[in-house]
Amino acid sequence: MGKIVLGIDFGSDSVRCVAVDAVSGKEVSTATVEYPRWKAQLFSDAAEGRYRQHPLDYIESLEKCVRNTLAGAGDAARDVVGLAFDTTASTPVLTDRKGTPLALLDKYRDNPDAMFILWKDHTAIAEADRINEVAHSNCPDYTSFSGGTYSCEWVWAKMLHCLKSSPELKEDVWSWVEHGDWIAGLLTGNTDPGTMARSRCIAGHKAMWNAKWGGLPTEGFLHEVDPELDIFKGHLFRDTVTCDRKVGGLTREWAERLGLPEGIAVGVGAIDCHVGAVGAGITPGNLVKVMGTSTCDIAIATYEEVGDRLLKGICGQVDGSVVPGKIGFEAGQSAFGDIYAWFSRFTGKGIPELTAEAEKLPLTMDDPVSLDWMNGRRTPDADPRVKGLISGLTLGTTPGMVFKSLVEATAFGSRAINERFIQEGVPIEEIIAVGGISRKSPFVMQTMADVLGMPIKVLDSDNACALGAAMFASVAAGIHPDVETAQKHMTPGICALYEPDAARHGIYDRRYALYKALA
Amino acid sequence: MGKIVLGIDFGSDSVRCVAVDAVSGKEVSTATVEYPRWKAQLFSDAAEGRYRQHPLDYIESLEKCVRNTLAGAGDAARDVVGLAFDTTASTPVLTDRKGTPLALLDKYRDNPDAMFILWKDHTAIAEADRINEVAHSNCPDYTSFSGGTYSCEWVWAKMLHCLKSSPELKEDVWSWVEHGDWIAGLLTGNTDPGTMARSRCIAGHKAMWNAKWGGLPTEGFLHEVDPELDIFKGHLFRDTVTCDRKVGGLTREWAERLGLPEGIAVGVGAIDCHVGAVGAGITPGNLVKVMGTSTCDIAIATYEEVGDRLLKGICGQVDGSVVPGKIGFEAGQSAFGDIYAWFSRFTGKGIPELTAEAEKLPLTMDDPVSLDWMNGRRTPDADPRVKGLISGLTLGTTPGMVFKSLVEATAFGSRAINERFIQEGVPIEEIIAVGGISRKSPFVMQTMADVLGMPIKVLDSDNACALGAAMFASVAAGIHPDVETAQKHMTPGICALYEPDAARHGIYDRRYALYKALA
Repeated sequence: MGKIVLGIDFGSDSVRCVAVDAVSGKEVSTATVEYPRWKAQLFSDAAEGRYRQHPLDYIESLEKCVRNTLAGAGDAARDVVGLAFDTTASTPVLTDRKGTPLALLDKYRDNPDAMFILWKDHTAIAEADRINEVAHSNCPDYTSFSGGTYSCEWVWAKMLHCLKSSPELKEDVWSWVEHGDWIAGLLTGNTDPGTMARSRCIAGHKAMWNAKWGGLPTEGFLHEVDPELDIFKGHLFRDTVTCDRKVGGLTREWAERLGLPEGIAVGVGAIDCHVGAVGAGITPGNLVKVMGTSTCDIAIATYEEVGDRLLKGICGQVDGSVVPGKIGFEAGQSAFGDIYAWFSRFTGKGIPELTAEAEKLPLTMDDPVSLDWMNGRRTPDADPRVKGLISGLTLGTTPGMVFKSLVEATAFGSRAINERFIQEGVPIEEIIAVGGISRKSPFVMQTMADVLGMPIKVLDSDNACALGAAMFASVAAGIHPDVETAQKHMTPGICALYEPDAARHGIYDRRYALYKALA
Repeated sequence: MGKIVLGIDFGSDSVRCVAVDAVSGKEVSTATVEYPRWKAQLFSDAAEGRYRQHPLDYIESLEKCVRNTLAGAGDAARDVVGLAFDTTASTPVLTDRKGTPLALLDKYRDNPDAMFILWKDHTAIAEADRINEVAHSNCPDYTSFSGGTYSCEWVWAKMLHCLKSSPELKEDVWSWVEHGDWIAGLLTGNTDPGTMARSRCIAGHKAMWNAKWGGLPTEGFLHEVDPELDIFKGHLFRDTVTCDRKVGGLTREWAERLGLPEGIAVGVGAIDCHVGAVGAGITPGNLVKVMGTSTCDIAIATYEEVGDRLLKGICGQVDGSVVPGKIGFEAGQSAFGDIYAWFSRFTGKGIPELTAEAEKLPLTMDDPVSLDWMNGRRTPDADPRVKGLISGLTLGTTPGMVFKSLVEATAFGSRAINERFIQEGVPIEEIIAVGGISRKSPFVMQTMADVLGMPIKVLDSDNACALGAAMFASVAAGIHPDVETAQKHMTPGICALYEPDAARHGIYDRRYALYKALA
């Protein structure tokens, strides 16, 4: 009795909620709701790399999704004692003095710069360049825990871009907030930019927050990047909280809107792939690969293993970001399933059809070789400007051949990340795969195992992120004392194991050399 | 009265015949007939680069095509005094002692190695490598008039490949014959391998025939390449004839089959693009670009201009091959329209639709850049192993964007050829375009003009090759004393002129540098 927790996962296209028994780990109910405006492609433009989401998409889909989950949970719906969630990141928005996203003000409701800037938005390349330039000429170099490169996918670049692109917003701009922090603030009744809870995981990986330099970069640094950033002076934050903490109790308003008891524990919002890694049972020595439209590759290490060393070209390294007490690392591929979806649109052939064609093909050194940088490269050595490429084309090349080559390219991209972790002293002994592709595409997974030369375990759950959020909720609600204990109770089993084929791995070693030569 | 000549053009997919008044240049009638077995894709395999044509395809389509042309010519059909023709090349076949293509023997009728090996067949790469190896270590280097590289698209490599691939044929193999020579022999009643007429144009460009070394390479050389070639010992030829010559009179059998008078003049068969260049009015200073599935770029120069110098990386240089008395040069792109057709199949979108999308796009340095080597590279510096490539891909890249990039790539390939001619001392002052694409695609032609930075004139005729053949027929029949006089009477006018846009040419200068950097 009283042991049900909700894990809520805000993905790129939809929100998912899962109700779990925190002691048995049994999943009681789940639901998914798509973002309606996003689905209608109202504020985005793929050709310009602009991807924006309206705050109403999050609110409306959250309400529906939680209510649908509770409707499916039967009697257990009455036993919910806490909830926590994860979101994509960096997905920030400009806010007014009250912490309200500007697009919720009627006058800005259709301005894409007043909305949440989705993680994969690439409009802020110039701004990221400027941040890197200033960071590299200062001490400390604030990018040092971000692999030495500040990404155009992250908050400071995006907020600066919005200020420059839509100066009319400045009349109301006061601060900014990440999607994950905003939801936590909304549900607990405090979105005040100065005092609301800010996630260690999000701020550490995306905003150059680090305890070593006392929090965020200084106002002087931000001014040097661009005086436009003075607008945030005194309106931001110094402290952050780890994901095992409770932000507050659910407000009466939101209890009513969601159909939940008032006052139940609300956990800290964190980055989806980090939370998914926890849900998948991450420990030091594992790499958890969250495989969807993009990938997020999460590893953790003890302070004893890594110490104060900084990992070269890994995009994030934050003490306490994944599992409190450990150092969390975030790597990833800017596009993964997105590449397959792009090619499916490009050829007008469905992914199942392309897969069936590709699976029948032999593996030779003459096959086309592709680069997987259609959305830039995140890890290793972030560079949003690099692009995708397909080589080895002949008049006999079919869509199935190119699809095979693209699947291999995404696996080669994964291999480049693994190799960098290992070179930098973080051992990768086991891959645990989660996310849609890991369960939907045996072809992609076997190719990945053959390319990596490493077995891959696939988690027996569609809901790793939501499940990780539920684990954090269980700690926030006081059911479990810490994340490790929650993992013991709540981590699901494995549904598939992909073993590498030695002969194919040998060919892929040589094809990987061709891939690297294309770079 | 008595001034009608027939020009017959055997293309890659069909044969076309045109009946022309040799004095006025007026086109009286024309017809086209497709090759039925080729159309049914009976003996080819694009994935393996194997393209074979059955001799019956040529015979059956020739009969129908000439009869259809005569049927459309009215009274003029009775005034035909000569015919000549052109074919693709190198398109050779193994023959028996009588000069009969082996596929016409019942026991070999379904063996692709007993058929004509179409110009674009790429199955003989290893054999071409061996020929180059032996040629480069001998004196004279027999490849020296072929740009220093013997191509896998040419007769010796192909015949050796067939002997090795189908050793059972050796029971009947005696000699080989090119498509053009075989048709001339057939119509005049002499296909004896030792005595039939052999075209200077075909033998010079494809079989390393050169008067300087007394004809074909020696039997000793061929033995060193591979002892299999000993099978041809004493069964080949020493002399060749230029295209202004008459091979003989039309036999009674073929007069009946074609519906023509017995004994009328039959001219020498020559290579389609060379004959097309004559039909387009080639003179020194022109480059005639025959634009179809591939391109053939023909230029001529006087002996005074070029002397004994050999042009580096141009695939053919033969005294008397295009216009008797001049030095003829053949260059070209192994795939041109074939690339557009491949991409149309690849995306399932028609070329008109792709063109419409591409035409609307702006021209920027960020656009995808492609390499046009989907069927290897013929000029400059022949290399059948290089392949096509598409770079600069993003998740927003559409088929229209890639199509635009492929059109640019084919134009960049053309520019590389022009630049090589000019570097090697053959001035190119004017482009005359002929062939399907020059008349069908203003988008391709304007892109080409912008990329080359040179005006392009488009010949006002769909039948440049057949018309050139008709010019040669008029000389063979004694109506005109030489090719230049025939050109004066029979060359058609211009139907379009594409002037380069200076601003776009400036951008293409920089994009061409990106193209060259991809190589």
